[in-house]
Amino acid sequence: MANIRLIEVKEEILADNDKVAAEIRKQLRSRQVFMLNLMSSPGGGKTSLIIETLRGLKPSMRAGVIEADIDSMVDAEKVAQEGIPAVQLRTGGACHVDAGMLELALREMDLAALDLLIVENVGNLVCPAEFDTGAARNVMILSVPEGDDKPLKYPLMFTICDALVVNKTDYLKMSDFDMEALKERVLKLNPNIRIFEVSCRTGEGIPAWTEWLEAEVEAFKK
Amino acid sequence: MANIRLIEVKEEILADNDKVAAEIRKQLRSRQVFMLNLMSSPGGGKTSLIIETLRGLKPSMRAGVIEADIDSMVDAEKVAQEGIPAVQLRTGGACHVDAGMLELALREMDLAALDLLIVENVGNLVCPAEFDTGAARNVMILSVPEGDDKPLKYPLMFTICDALVVNKTDYLKMSDFDMEALKERVLKLNPNIRIFEVSCRTGEGIPAWTEWLEAEVEAFKK
Repeated sequence: MANIRLIEVKEEILADNDKVAAEIRKQLRSRQVFMLNLMSSPGGGKTSLIIETLRGLKPSMRAGVIEADIDSMVDAEKVAQEGIPAVQLRTGGACHVDAGMLELALREMDLAALDLLIVENVGNLVCPAEFDTGAARNVMILSVPEGDDKPLKYPLMFTICDALVVNKTDYLKMSDFDMEALKERVLKLNPNIRIFEVSCRTGEGIPAWTEWLEAEVEAFKK
Repeated sequence: MANIRLIEVKEEILADNDKVAAEIRKQLRSRQVFMLNLMSSPGGGKTSLIIETLRGLKPSMRAGVIEADIDSMVDAEKVAQEGIPAVQLRTGGACHVDAGMLELALREMDLAALDLLIVENVGNLVCPAEFDTGAARNVMILSVPEGDDKPLKYPLMFTICDALVVNKTDYLKMSDFDMEALKERVLKLNPNIRIFEVSCRTGEGIPAWTEWLEAEVEAFKK
């Protein structure tokens, strides 16, 4: 597909991740590109949220996507179908995106043509939380079928995120998921986190999320 | 709770994992304990399946559980409520169980009193697939809300497992999950894998799964 580039990350990149992340952050600051690092469990709905976000953003917001996966290009193909520039980062077994991988991906993107760059991390609630990517904001998705106990088990992920998107709220009626218990657990770990309840399937809650994101991008660019 | 032991895994264990796993396998073979390594995404239903399995096994089958989690003891507490001996392995950030951690946990268990030992790995479809634990069988859960495309994205996990339990089938009616497409993708990676469709919530499909597990344990002990 015309809008996809593929990068194979064949060797483990052992360079000082924090240093590279700081360089990326500086570069994106000077280029005025807001980078969002999006994380979740496998199947939490990262690609679906990206697609709903791209459709919901105002047309003047120029967006690009970096899709990381251990294997396959299915997500980048879905994004490219939206007419959005996408880079597929194939991590070759790595369980997270690190700054070195992103540096490679950023070379393939026309940063001057972007306001917002969304990175879809590898589906994993553990390792991605440990590697700074240089993103302006970290956002995680928790999907309702995963259960309301996840902050107890994967506390670091909830701690390092600026926003939590609770996805698949259309499953709430079939589930014993306790939204208030979830919020209490999350806010105990991270009192400043923003929480959005959405269903990518029905579109419910998406406008509040995209409004927040647009405001963050605009504040960043000022 | 009386039936729980807590082990903190504070330092990264860098010993040769495969060597330790082989030693564990030999030890469990001589002690006639069948160890099952159970893996899934966060919230896939590992603890629920363990509890349904413990309830479904014939009473003569003596079972124990090792619960691994980055933090919290909630799963071990649930298992202990079933009157089953449980060890909680707190991995302190590690994204998988390795053989060295298990060696520590096994020292806390009365192996002579066990036929079956179930290890609940850390919720993660990536890293646990890379570390042999010494288990007789590897089993993974994929839950319906995660989607039928997961074999394309996490192929190693599907490749190294002896059985796949497709859980949360009660969500099928709300979902576009394509069971035939899933099976085709899984069998392409691993033609010998056994696939079970279950709902831990309704109990549907649990008997076929526990019958298979009992037969595997009995074959192992012969």
